[in-house]
Amino acid sequence: MSVLQEISSDVRNMKQMENFVLFRRTNEIKEELRRGVRKSYREVIDVSWGDPHRAGVKPLSFVRQVLAACLYPELMDGDKLMVDVKQRAQRLLGTCAGGSVGSYCATAGIPQILQSISQYIMRRDGGVPCHPENIYISPGSQWALTNILKVLVNSEASPRTGVLIPVPCHSTTIISLTTLGAVAVPYYLREERGWALEMEELQRALDSAKGVCNPVALYMINPGNPAGYVQSRKSIQEVIRFAAEKKLFLLADEVYQDCVYGKESEFVSYKRALAEIGAPLSDSVELASFHTASKGLMGECGLRTGYVELVNLDPAVMKHINNLFSTNSCPILGQIALDVMVNPPQPGDPSYPLYLKETQHIRASLAQNVRRVEEVINSFPDFSCQPLEGGAFAFPRLFLPPKAIERAKEAGLQPDTFYCLRLLEEAGVLFSPGTEYGQKEGTYHIRFCIMTPTDTMEEILRRLSAFHEQFMKEFS
Amino acid sequence: MSVLQEISSDVRNMKQMENFVLFRRTNEIKEELRRGVRKSYREVIDVSWGDPHRAGVKPLSFVRQVLAACLYPELMDGDKLMVDVKQRAQRLLGTCAGGSVGSYCATAGIPQILQSISQYIMRRDGGVPCHPENIYISPGSQWALTNILKVLVNSEASPRTGVLIPVPCHSTTIISLTTLGAVAVPYYLREERGWALEMEELQRALDSAKGVCNPVALYMINPGNPAGYVQSRKSIQEVIRFAAEKKLFLLADEVYQDCVYGKESEFVSYKRALAEIGAPLSDSVELASFHTASKGLMGECGLRTGYVELVNLDPAVMKHINNLFSTNSCPILGQIALDVMVNPPQPGDPSYPLYLKETQHIRASLAQNVRRVEEVINSFPDFSCQPLEGGAFAFPRLFLPPKAIERAKEAGLQPDTFYCLRLLEEAGVLFSPGTEYGQKEGTYHIRFCIMTPTDTMEEILRRLSAFHEQFMKEFS
Repeated sequence: MSVLQEISSDVRNMKQMENFVLFRRTNEIKEELRRGVRKSYREVIDVSWGDPHRAGVKPLSFVRQVLAACLYPELMDGDKLMVDVKQRAQRLLGTCAGGSVGSYCATAGIPQILQSISQYIMRRDGGVPCHPENIYISPGSQWALTNILKVLVNSEASPRTGVLIPVPCHSTTIISLTTLGAVAVPYYLREERGWALEMEELQRALDSAKGVCNPVALYMINPGNPAGYVQSRKSIQEVIRFAAEKKLFLLADEVYQDCVYGKESEFVSYKRALAEIGAPLSDSVELASFHTASKGLMGECGLRTGYVELVNLDPAVMKHINNLFSTNSCPILGQIALDVMVNPPQPGDPSYPLYLKETQHIRASLAQNVRRVEEVINSFPDFSCQPLEGGAFAFPRLFLPPKAIERAKEAGLQPDTFYCLRLLEEAGVLFSPGTEYGQKEGTYHIRFCIMTPTDTMEEILRRLSAFHEQFMKEFS
Repeated sequence: MSVLQEISSDVRNMKQMENFVLFRRTNEIKEELRRGVRKSYREVIDVSWGDPHRAGVKPLSFVRQVLAACLYPELMDGDKLMVDVKQRAQRLLGTCAGGSVGSYCATAGIPQILQSISQYIMRRDGGVPCHPENIYISPGSQWALTNILKVLVNSEASPRTGVLIPVPCHSTTIISLTTLGAVAVPYYLREERGWALEMEELQRALDSAKGVCNPVALYMINPGNPAGYVQSRKSIQEVIRFAAEKKLFLLADEVYQDCVYGKESEFVSYKRALAEIGAPLSDSVELASFHTASKGLMGECGLRTGYVELVNLDPAVMKHINNLFSTNSCPILGQIALDVMVNPPQPGDPSYPLYLKETQHIRASLAQNVRRVEEVINSFPDFSCQPLEGGAFAFPRLFLPPKAIERAKEAGLQPDTFYCLRLLEEAGVLFSPGTEYGQKEGTYHIRFCIMTPTDTMEEILRRLSAFHEQFMKEFS
């Protein structure tokens, strides 16, 4: 007997993730392999996460050296570390209370690191002003997003608060929204046009909310996750004008901003695009932009650190946001990684040659993976991958035969979950199903991380191709 | 004009911390000192936080060495690190996906570290069983507490959900509670009896909730914060029986469990005391116990890591808790620090002599600080400190003259905030006022961290004594 008579309905409503069945089976298979059970593969390759290190990408040496030196300053005595590593570590230790990364810091983050971030944003945006007091560092960008949503979503309102979100969209945002009692209002990206965000569709989505909820914000992620698009400046400006007209708060998830590889693609921040539109919009449209140390070239997910920049917010609202961010402070080591991320070694610095070599290697591997993924997937008649322009994932469409769909239903699974489960079982490769991200009814997709060493990606594609051919034959 | 017409009332209600005025003035004074403004002190000593490193305590070398080696494994090539440091780092890296501390891990925490924690708990509790699947690692123990409260507190319920909390109580818990829409039902600890928790008072508090809210849980912190008591086994068992009878969920904040120094004091965990009571209570009373790497001898606040162990929870409730902890994963480096905390170097290990020396030094300093704080404070007729038995703080009572109280009111401040502000201004020492923690009406207190080097504490006491004498004379 429990003393808990009631579970908060927010918690009760929390969506069970569709791919839990896949995680459980992965653990079982790993255990079977450990016990020596024979399979056609010797290990499971798990690319269901956006986690480059897990997939075998090496961490950047400069980041790790600075962190190690900050943790154990005695390391700076010898000649094992470059002089710029030591200088950076010493400068950063000077910003920590008591000179220790073990101290608490101000809840918005270490002031000097907020300053570094604001300078980075200004450089990135061609000089558009950025003020450190509008930036909050947090334990992961998702945490920051949830805090902003807490201010936007009135859980007691009737009709409920609505937030427009793209379909497909990574699942953590959807969970955050529904947990807070908001309604996720879907707008569908047009897959056939490279997952384009179309204005008529945004308008349709907004209209669909009438009588259901009160939409107050528009969320988008650029570069995309799970779909690997990069929005054009024109598209971004259209979205901003739409938001201005409809009085929507803009939530711009820009965590893959350093991860753009499409030949015609360029990362333009929502903040920059807004500034370029000029007054009165540039002084009035409310915007939150998110970034992190977990993604892109750095890929330090384990440090749990991100930040949000807030633009054009009412001072009264900023005060509430300040209160919310006051309830937790974020890991110091993650902040140190952010400092390195926004201010990496420069030409002439002793650590620059190694830094350049390592980042070029990651970029070159990614470019090769992109080429090979598009090539292999699109070589199948029942598989289709839109051009990959940015982010860390491929999200190809799967044209499943009716018999496979039927079999999935018999197994009580979504068709793409069924496909992923069979792929895992037979080829030892873990992807996640499109179901988890939302997709147009009757379409099926899979998502996998493409930030891997090139030989890992070749192995994935080899296993996937053999499996896919077999699977399609079985259900044809 | 803001597009935000409404701020969620939960956020609006969030309590502004009383000592904000003190923080602001501290920053101004630091800036004045930097600019060369002459004062009777050359730097501000800030002991308003429970942050040993900030106060000058040195981090433990073994912890930092293992962390540095995990971050930058190349460090293990040389002979700079002891062999047990390397072994530990290698073992822990083996538990990280892709062998990198930059990867995500399971949301409950790294399984092998959960295992280490469960073994520690069993040793601590004389063999009472502990299952790793009942433990969740989180970014700080406060985060874990908030998650458990989310399950206990039904924000839509009428009457509202109540949680019994001690007075005094550290403010983050109160903020978490009210932010979630719960009612904090105060029970007063009896200062004159060493801040004892008395059963009649618990009953009075519960009765006081009638018609106001529906109390579902009882929160206590042992060893205490801000008051430095340690609960006896008998007192703990009385509380457990009370909770069983009244069907209250027990929230046991035990983050100072390795920080007990009272001669007659011993840390007994709520879980152990519950097991010792035996069936049927030991199989039915629901309990959450919190611990952290931020406090005690380790003091690694900057890593942001704690954990919660759940006892006797309904499996259906555990499932919801599991969902809540799934929305975030916690920093890997903090988990590594937890592994070291629950499994420090042992006699015979190469790192043991240094570890022993460092921990003995911290304990000896703390013991001396405790003796000196009691001695100095109790030497004043209008100042009184109960025996300090555990935790990191002193919370002495201040008998303020009516004139001082009047002057404080004129300044729009609580009397103890006024005292702290004057102490800061004139002596350059930052304490926090009792107001922030709750106190019996008409009583005034100050809180300060006693985990400092001994010379720092002497300097604090010297400045405090001179100021206090002067202040009391001024308002007598």
